[in-house]
Amino acid sequence: VRKKCLNLVNGAFSKRWHQITAYNGVPCDALSIEWNKAIKPEMVREKLDTGEYDAVTLVFNETSTGTMNPLKEIAEVVKEYDDVFLFVDAVSAMAGVKIEVDKLGIDMCLAGLQKCFALPSGLAVSPVSERLLERAKEVPPRSYYFNLNIMHKYYQRSQTPVTPAIPHLFALDRQLDYILDEEGLENRFARHERMAAIVQKWARTHFDTYPERGYESKTLTCIENTRGISVKELNERLMNEYGMRISNGYGELKEKTFRIAHMGDAQVQDVKGLLAVIDDILGLE
Amino acid sequence: VRKKCLNLVNGAFSKRWHQITAYNGVPCDALSIEWNKAIKPEMVREKLDTGEYDAVTLVFNETSTGTMNPLKEIAEVVKEYDDVFLFVDAVSAMAGVKIEVDKLGIDMCLAGLQKCFALPSGLAVSPVSERLLERAKEVPPRSYYFNLNIMHKYYQRSQTPVTPAIPHLFALDRQLDYILDEEGLENRFARHERMAAIVQKWARTHFDTYPERGYESKTLTCIENTRGISVKELNERLMNEYGMRISNGYGELKEKTFRIAHMGDAQVQDVKGLLAVIDDILGLE
Repeated sequence: VRKKCLNLVNGAFSKRWHQITAYNGVPCDALSIEWNKAIKPEMVREKLDTGEYDAVTLVFNETSTGTMNPLKEIAEVVKEYDDVFLFVDAVSAMAGVKIEVDKLGIDMCLAGLQKCFALPSGLAVSPVSERLLERAKEVPPRSYYFNLNIMHKYYQRSQTPVTPAIPHLFALDRQLDYILDEEGLENRFARHERMAAIVQKWARTHFDTYPERGYESKTLTCIENTRGISVKELNERLMNEYGMRISNGYGELKEKTFRIAHMGDAQVQDVKGLLAVIDDILGLE
Repeated sequence: VRKKCLNLVNGAFSKRWHQITAYNGVPCDALSIEWNKAIKPEMVREKLDTGEYDAVTLVFNETSTGTMNPLKEIAEVVKEYDDVFLFVDAVSAMAGVKIEVDKLGIDMCLAGLQKCFALPSGLAVSPVSERLLERAKEVPPRSYYFNLNIMHKYYQRSQTPVTPAIPHLFALDRQLDYILDEEGLENRFARHERMAAIVQKWARTHFDTYPERGYESKTLTCIENTRGISVKELNERLMNEYGMRISNGYGELKEKTFRIAHMGDAQVQDVKGLLAVIDDILGLE
């Protein structure tokens, strides 16, 4: 970053990215909006028009709020500005939702393996654009551990700069074979769509969905607790009696919302089973 | 660090720590000596007497050269200077060699699990001193990921700031039970001593040891290739015919030295078996 970084903030994880940017000594501003709203392309254009920024961070799928920001539309706006780099957090979306990294001009698209890849936590992955690698050469290094130049140098030799988490690499190799050759990418994305539609419909029938309409996540649904149920108690019964688990709301949204994940290797029947059990526990229908 | 950091350098990994310190924007100097020599306490005293430094980094066991620096003696010197923090890389030593972290006044003692803990790579551990936690509060944060304040805050709630590598934590828990309750710490240290003595004796009979006498590592032996054998070929035969593996020399020491690891869960009989096989291949004795 030569000028300033614009952090788009509408949830706990995008807020954290702003904090990380500041901690790393990168000049930055947050564009913060209400957490149940999505970032809109025109908001981004307005900020980029100032000419103050040459980097944008976006959390595609806010795991804290269940909001899926309109990545395609935002990326198209960023693309209009030649010198602006786009960094995307796709932690809870990659491998569950289609992301056309090259076409959208995303310079870095980060994900952890413990979400839609359905693998144990411990490894992060990211495609990186050529122009980001070029830019990284011009920037004084700020660390050894997160150093794109060093990573890329070792990558070209099929090595890693530091001893990697070997078991995770084997697991990733196996899972990528499964995703690409057995299930098929398009089938995987379609399965996430179906699961999301089922949970959203259920949520609107009995409660309400938290995010602004039209921006609901395909990988997890954040539900507004309009019935004032005890989410903690519901989750305890799910865990103790059925070995199932949902998530309470994140941080300040605890008990005001709750979240149901439908990602990774979860199947339509798993989701239907979970919702039927919740119906029983809460006496719904 | 308020003043400057002194990086003690006598191998590839201590050289890298100097580079890391500089990359992180911490003012620093390297005290560099020949790679087959050990850092001596009086060298450290001479530098600290200048009053320029308030932090020292030391690689206890240089995996690149098989040199074990005199940690106890160096720590005693550092302790004489009240305001100097001691950071120790114990990557290939912790859980194989006794390190009295509190008694020696080590402020941070880093290790990876893939060496003497005999676990898969992917997790680093470190005890941290109270005064380092206090100091961390006064220093402007330089990153989120390696932020002691944040880590400590979550540690106090038995949590981690980011999703941790869960499988590694279970493996560590299991292995710590084994080390402490089944094998016993002192037995583990004694086993490493025995294995080191066997390999060193073998090395001196047929070749020579690379590090200065008296400073040979207890966890791996770096052998000077005085016979001019092809280490690459020896290793290929070991791997293909016996499923065993040694290490070539590190970086510029390739083919000039080679390294035999005797750490982790390796037993005396494993080490003897390996050496007997090498004798056969090279026609030694």
